[in-house]
Amino acid sequence: MKKLINAVDDAVSDALKGVEAADPRVSVDHDQKVVYRKNMKPGKVGLVSGGGSGHEPLHGGYVGYGMLDAAAAGEVFTSPTPEQVLRATELANQGAGVLHIVKNYTGDVMNFEMAAEMADGVEVKAVVVADDVAVQDSLYTAGRRGVGLTVLVEKIVGAAAEEGRDLAGCEALAQKVCDRGRSMGMALTSCTVPAVGHPTFDLPEDEMEIGIGIHGEPGRERFKIESAASIAKRLVEPILEDRDFTGDPVIVMMNGMGGTPLSELYLIYADVKALLDARGVKVARVMVGNYITSLDMAGCSVTLLAADDELLKLFDAPVDTAGLRWGM
Amino acid sequence: MKKLINAVDDAVSDALKGVEAADPRVSVDHDQKVVYRKNMKPGKVGLVSGGGSGHEPLHGGYVGYGMLDAAAAGEVFTSPTPEQVLRATELANQGAGVLHIVKNYTGDVMNFEMAAEMADGVEVKAVVVADDVAVQDSLYTAGRRGVGLTVLVEKIVGAAAEEGRDLAGCEALAQKVCDRGRSMGMALTSCTVPAVGHPTFDLPEDEMEIGIGIHGEPGRERFKIESAASIAKRLVEPILEDRDFTGDPVIVMMNGMGGTPLSELYLIYADVKALLDARGVKVARVMVGNYITSLDMAGCSVTLLAADDELLKLFDAPVDTAGLRWGM
Repeated sequence: MKKLINAVDDAVSDALKGVEAADPRVSVDHDQKVVYRKNMKPGKVGLVSGGGSGHEPLHGGYVGYGMLDAAAAGEVFTSPTPEQVLRATELANQGAGVLHIVKNYTGDVMNFEMAAEMADGVEVKAVVVADDVAVQDSLYTAGRRGVGLTVLVEKIVGAAAEEGRDLAGCEALAQKVCDRGRSMGMALTSCTVPAVGHPTFDLPEDEMEIGIGIHGEPGRERFKIESAASIAKRLVEPILEDRDFTGDPVIVMMNGMGGTPLSELYLIYADVKALLDARGVKVARVMVGNYITSLDMAGCSVTLLAADDELLKLFDAPVDTAGLRWGM
Repeated sequence: MKKLINAVDDAVSDALKGVEAADPRVSVDHDQKVVYRKNMKPGKVGLVSGGGSGHEPLHGGYVGYGMLDAAAAGEVFTSPTPEQVLRATELANQGAGVLHIVKNYTGDVMNFEMAAEMADGVEVKAVVVADDVAVQDSLYTAGRRGVGLTVLVEKIVGAAAEEGRDLAGCEALAQKVCDRGRSMGMALTSCTVPAVGHPTFDLPEDEMEIGIGIHGEPGRERFKIESAASIAKRLVEPILEDRDFTGDPVIVMMNGMGGTPLSELYLIYADVKALLDARGVKVARVMVGNYITSLDMAGCSVTLLAADDELLKLFDAPVDTAGLRWGM
């Protein structure tokens, strides 16, 4: 297994040591594996997310001004415990309540719910992100999986919370983003979980998998490898079949799974953009890069969000995190 | 070969189509494969870089306010032609002369020199970055190779040019950064050049290579894979043996080669930081991410720059590019 680690069991906690050493915005509770903002804002709604590790920069890299207040890092591809989420919730609570942003995986949903019940005296609301159009249910999910849209929920609701929106308002906004966004992903290769030591699944040298999950869980179908233009079609069309994206200014996130070079993400984005143009979808903002990954998996995903003036303004608002930074 | 491409011969030009579609800051001369700023600043010194493609976001991703004005994209791992560099130089020229920032590879140095001679009526100066302590000469280089420090030269001199520094001043500043920076890299895997279709070199499943170049050219030595802490030592110690980094505030760039997850870069940064602490090196700024890559290679590099008040101020100054963005 070719990884920059010390001991398999310490992969997550050692990475968090590096986060603390490198990122001046955050502190780390090493005992509970929670990354949290150094400068909390009294009276602000606290935003908490988290999930299994292995999707970096999600979620710890999105802690900071204009996004999350705290993120709970589970073991690789493993839900954080209720205690971890509780600790993140307590740290994020600045007297105005806490919003949990939860990716739709059975373990995550359950453990965030338990943490909310355990958080005595903290008003907690939750939004469950379920944007992946690939499969209805999966190994890890009842209903659709939560994937790339999570980044946009964190960004947009983070901006609103920073501006002073109250808990009910943040919850409604998060739900609005969830309702208007869809994603679809694909893999060229598997990923390797440190504790396992070999690739999660076998994908022959000439095949790819469409609709893959961010933990390497099965997708829709395997095909012989195709051109970027064909792959773009297999990602964009199911999204457009699921929701009408014409008529709204659209935010596009062209996301890499971790092992794919940036140049290839730009390359396939040209094909995605051509398809969107042909289908009358108007792109207002674009992000190209590694935002929600699956360790060393090669592959990509596309997320579309049908924005409006409010969502665009909040998307453009200043943000200062290790993973997203602009306007300040 | 598992890549998001359409045709092997179009990999670079198709990626540039995506850059133009995604990045509102830049235009692309598709004929000459030059990425350039949409809003040039009359009277500003023009900053031009370039080199073989495959190192993204370097260089096209660093075109924009506070960094480069134009970047010439050669074929993958192949120097841009003199005509490409000439075109970039002409586009960047706003009447105050142009500085070429050149990584030290024989072909790059020669072709930038030829372009400077061809650029009638444009005053051109050049700085050659040669920061890699791994090897003295290499397959592609007389003298040390130019690697990660290039990013910091582009950032720091870009800020000075934006503030109105003249050509001689920009040249001197670039040389100052070059004199004060050193890098060292390593690979866990090879990379695959699209036109070749198979890995550039063989690296057995249990081995790594220290001192590798950014084109997969040979390094210092191969070892059985070690812990991140041991690898950090093999990267940091040769740098500290080559130059004294105590006494100055140091900018550290913990760089990924393209195929290594961000979490592993943070993990090994914790080990790098511990070594620097133990050796009395004071870290003032840290960047962790993929800044100068080698396609899909797994591995990392460390760059140290002995800064001072001037360099820190210019490093912190606003920048707005796809690859680096802060302060605006």
